[in-house]
Amino acid sequence: MQNKPHLYTVLSPKLLSLYPVEGAVVVIIDVFRATSTIATALYNGASKIIPVDDVEKCKALGAQLNAITAGERDGKVIEGLQYGNSPAEYPRSFIEGKTLVLTTTNGTKLLHMALHAGAAEVVTGSFPNLNAVVAFLQAQNKPVILGCSGWKDRFNLEDTLFAGAVIQQVAEQFTIHCDASKMAVELYTAQQATMQQYIRQTTHWHRLSKFGLDKDLEYCVTPNVANVLPRYVNGELIAS
Amino acid sequence: MQNKPHLYTVLSPKLLSLYPVEGAVVVIIDVFRATSTIATALYNGASKIIPVDDVEKCKALGAQLNAITAGERDGKVIEGLQYGNSPAEYPRSFIEGKTLVLTTTNGTKLLHMALHAGAAEVVTGSFPNLNAVVAFLQAQNKPVILGCSGWKDRFNLEDTLFAGAVIQQVAEQFTIHCDASKMAVELYTAQQATMQQYIRQTTHWHRLSKFGLDKDLEYCVTPNVANVLPRYVNGELIAS
Repeated sequence: MQNKPHLYTVLSPKLLSLYPVEGAVVVIIDVFRATSTIATALYNGASKIIPVDDVEKCKALGAQLNAITAGERDGKVIEGLQYGNSPAEYPRSFIEGKTLVLTTTNGTKLLHMALHAGAAEVVTGSFPNLNAVVAFLQAQNKPVILGCSGWKDRFNLEDTLFAGAVIQQVAEQFTIHCDASKMAVELYTAQQATMQQYIRQTTHWHRLSKFGLDKDLEYCVTPNVANVLPRYVNGELIAS
Repeated sequence: MQNKPHLYTVLSPKLLSLYPVEGAVVVIIDVFRATSTIATALYNGASKIIPVDDVEKCKALGAQLNAITAGERDGKVIEGLQYGNSPAEYPRSFIEGKTLVLTTTNGTKLLHMALHAGAAEVVTGSFPNLNAVVAFLQAQNKPVILGCSGWKDRFNLEDTLFAGAVIQQVAEQFTIHCDASKMAVELYTAQQATMQQYIRQTTHWHRLSKFGLDKDLEYCVTPNVANVLPRYVNGELIAS
């Protein structure tokens, strides 16, 4: 019993420093929509994805690598970039074999924070690659941090629900003394049968659906439609 | 509709700066056990309670005011102080007419943070004074921040449950665009019928119950047994 590794859920990047990140596998979660898009693009054959936190870096790196640049603010492609944050923009016919430089805000920040705090591995998760994340955590037998990106550092429901979906499957293999994990798995268990309806009540849905992104958001909470594991290695997310 | 004031739930003191505190009524929540003890002592006739964040300040102020000093670490009275953090230590026969200087950690810190951020009113809440808090928020018609003290800045279930209990009663009078509030009220609604059992699964219960505090903890989640409103005025909590 005592030898099971610990698992914690971190509800906001601002809380990461309170948890034992060193030596842990950190799962970066940004369901609407960065980590859903990352899983989808890699699943559809993108050679790699470079997440950056800044639009100018994105443009510069895109030019240097002859890569696709992508990023949105308020539901629109950022001026000077080529594509948006929608998983639907990255079918195999378009993205296979290509490099994507993606600007995200909370997700990228959290990823860098996890590395600085000594994470053993950083991977990304969302519903489309739920089982790939679960299988990886089960195989590693290392401590786990489920890191929710939130919205501007605030708690959000969709990232917490994904943490709960992971915990529901891996709980028996971990020591979980963590109220946030308990809450997350209870929330997910209560809502999983009606996720497509439930998620419409989140604040993020209200912000994004006015941009006509309903289909996108529904996809982002659909489990296992892009089961690949994005691992962050030397500044790049690659499929594993 | 649009004119209803906003209500937000802040799940950790570390997240307070993300929310619009200025001009709001801030409810400080520290169910196990500071705000339960505060409500109980004032309900039983304490003339005032001075919350301090430091043991030496507590001793100095106690001597200066000829007041009762109280504080615990790990379930034991701190050396040099007279009493602990248990609501059961403050019956009317003992506390009536007296001043209590109470050291708390997270609760006092959050209280000072709320004042610095421009809160219009700071009050304290826990299950024993649930309806007093609800009635006050309904009467004020001001924006509300429900501030959970958490445990060492981590999310905890018991403070979140109390936030949910408040929201369940006041939701119709407020504009609530806040995923944390939605989660809190769902959690409380799901668990309220079996709170005495549910609360035994929290990490805080596991930390405190080994000190023989089960009765204390049960009391702290019992609604409306000490319905007074502690308001923070000029450095003192007084009954309102």
